[in-house]
Amino acid sequence: MQYYPPSIIRLIKELSKLPGIGEKTATRLALHILRTSRDEARRLSESILEVKEKVKLCSQCFGLSDTDPCRLCRNPNRDHTTVCVVEQPSDMVALEKAGAFKGVYHVLHGALSPINGIGPDKLKIKELIARVEKGKVRELILATNTNVEGESTASYLADLLKPHPVHVTRIASGVPMGSDLKYLDEVTIKRAMERREAF
Amino acid sequence: MQYYPPSIIRLIKELSKLPGIGEKTATRLALHILRTSRDEARRLSESILEVKEKVKLCSQCFGLSDTDPCRLCRNPNRDHTTVCVVEQPSDMVALEKAGAFKGVYHVLHGALSPINGIGPDKLKIKELIARVEKGKVRELILATNTNVEGESTASYLADLLKPHPVHVTRIASGVPMGSDLKYLDEVTIKRAMERREAF
Repeated sequence: MQYYPPSIIRLIKELSKLPGIGEKTATRLALHILRTSRDEARRLSESILEVKEKVKLCSQCFGLSDTDPCRLCRNPNRDHTTVCVVEQPSDMVALEKAGAFKGVYHVLHGALSPINGIGPDKLKIKELIARVEKGKVRELILATNTNVEGESTASYLADLLKPHPVHVTRIASGVPMGSDLKYLDEVTIKRAMERREAF
Repeated sequence: MQYYPPSIIRLIKELSKLPGIGEKTATRLALHILRTSRDEARRLSESILEVKEKVKLCSQCFGLSDTDPCRLCRNPNRDHTTVCVVEQPSDMVALEKAGAFKGVYHVLHGALSPINGIGPDKLKIKELIARVEKGKVRELILATNTNVEGESTASYLADLLKPHPVHVTRIASGVPMGSDLKYLDEVTIKRAMERREAF
């Protein structure tokens, strides 16, 4: 890397800070950027600054949005009495892509993880309770991930919400569609057996 | 992707134009950029513009440089009578890393490839001949790649340089160091046998 001119080295260093981009990939990307047109590079450069400036959190669901409230929270065709609680904005996008939900969301921005110093205060839990206390929410679907952090966050929220007159549910867990039992981990298989349903 | 706010979508689109970056990786990178500090994002954005502004081709070797002539062409400790001809600036870096060459370079910026419309006019061949005609170059090492395009570019240059009083050589080809013959392609093995040397 030290054999390139200083400005290329600087770009390689900045690019290597991105997740999953090592020095080799960063070098390849930097040389590609050098070869593209000035306009192309300007567009990339500007769009990086633009997201930092424009994207805010929606004050209702805490999803990523250029507007406040966001497109979903503003939409009168969505069911505003059903709130789906997710860890990250990307989880919200995954659910939207699946098209299986017509309510609104609440993004926690993480999951409880004492080992990493993430307690309830670091998540949008206070805001969720406030939203429930307003009384319009009838069902709260806990759609945190099914790993240790996600599961304990779901339990924590379920306990916390017990005093409130809201129906709390959890997304189903079991064998993913299209999968082969022999390649599946034991915990999932055990869970799928325990939660078996009438055919 | 369409579930993200417009400014994020724009950044994802710009990032997906980079080589080897698909929509999924671009989304991951865009969300990472969103999470980093404003300063971090500004540094990345600026370094992209900076390379486009600062990096030029050295007027002597046509390598990438912030200065003209470049660091290597300016260096009095390099042997300016030996010129190593490479296809790309990255090849020059590979040779510098190996530390096996103390002369100067000439970057062609490609290899002859009639099928892709790349003829001698698209490469820095005219400039190489001009450099040789100045009379200071004693040896010209053809270090183009050993694929079809690189080999034919080397042959073409060797023919073109015949009338000139310069010693033209080609980097050795054969079995790469540390490799296992049984995994090597036949062309390399054949070449290594043909060019065998006294032990």
